[in-house]
Amino acid sequence: MAGVLYVISGPSGVGKTSIIEGVMKRVKNLVFSVSCTTRPKRPNEVEGRDYFFVDEETFMRMMKEDEFLEWAIVHGYYYGTPRRFVEEQLRSNVNVILDIDVQGATTVMKKVKDAVFIFVAPPSFDELKKRLLKRGTERQEDMIKRLEDAKKELEQIPKFQYLIVNVDLQESIDQLTSIIVAEQLKVNRVIERLGFHKIFSDGGDSK
Amino acid sequence: MAGVLYVISGPSGVGKTSIIEGVMKRVKNLVFSVSCTTRPKRPNEVEGRDYFFVDEETFMRMMKEDEFLEWAIVHGYYYGTPRRFVEEQLRSNVNVILDIDVQGATTVMKKVKDAVFIFVAPPSFDELKKRLLKRGTERQEDMIKRLEDAKKELEQIPKFQYLIVNVDLQESIDQLTSIIVAEQLKVNRVIERLGFHKIFSDGGDSK
Repeated sequence: MAGVLYVISGPSGVGKTSIIEGVMKRVKNLVFSVSCTTRPKRPNEVEGRDYFFVDEETFMRMMKEDEFLEWAIVHGYYYGTPRRFVEEQLRSNVNVILDIDVQGATTVMKKVKDAVFIFVAPPSFDELKKRLLKRGTERQEDMIKRLEDAKKELEQIPKFQYLIVNVDLQESIDQLTSIIVAEQLKVNRVIERLGFHKIFSDGGDSK
Repeated sequence: MAGVLYVISGPSGVGKTSIIEGVMKRVKNLVFSVSCTTRPKRPNEVEGRDYFFVDEETFMRMMKEDEFLEWAIVHGYYYGTPRRFVEEQLRSNVNVILDIDVQGATTVMKKVKDAVFIFVAPPSFDELKKRLLKRGTERQEDMIKRLEDAKKELEQIPKFQYLIVNVDLQESIDQLTSIIVAEQLKVNRVIERLGFHKIFSDGGDSK
């Protein structure tokens, strides 16, 4: 599979979605993988753009039929990445970006060896709390759970390859863009993309 | 040493110097390591900016006194990287960029384990030949030698981490900038730079 899979993960409320939105506008040949979830839709969310909102019965059936690259229970709801879309894009040399929780990311680490794993961290816990409060879409008990989970999630950082501390949205967009561009320039990927002959040929095929 | 050493290498005439000049204008906290050479100065070159031009006797003395991080004979002339400058900058958390030949780069691979190695390749051999002719600073016999060496140098590409195929100068500058930014975001480097407490602290030190 010649496309590269970029897995963006980190605590709820850290700003992953905004960073990815900014990057999608700037980077070519990159698609976003829309997850399935049983979580209720937030007012600003759009079916099929932000998530596929499904009921538990549908989710269970998809799980049984091995339709997920990874799935996880996060804050009491199911989340899963539809496997077929990701595989088809990568096979067509299109790069794919996943926005998934930390549990899901560690599952993908075991399944997709050459994926790129990027953790987005808040500048501090206080800042994360502020952002969740500002979002105002969480019930109080959900928010406490998210903050507790965040502590455990931060412990997983050393398993990831890259770490973006999201202090400033624009800077974080620049940073994620740089990671995506740089990873395309890894020697093995360039040789796979261009073919050995292009680089090692002895003239005759110059542009 | 908390600074990162970026080693840019590739055949003569491929455009390394122009790419690096472009990057130096855009990236903060990055210094260029000026090499020593016994090669005659070209008309557009400036002592201390492009190279330290020294005679063979001086070069031999510096070699004996272990003043070089690496040295190599390229196209009949000596080239070497002054060790002390590089080490001091890295110790002061400043990132350093080296523009060295492929032999020298493979020497640094053995000495500096966490350096980042970037190969700059021409789009084709014909293109490389055109660029050397256009530069017009080489004697005919020097140019033939450079082209012969280039073939051997390209075989070393798989030892490098990144490969930039220099089709368009501006694009190559963007690519090298992205590599430098991305490498600063590697998990281990961010943790070393910020300190563990900054990322894992439980509030109280938010900005």
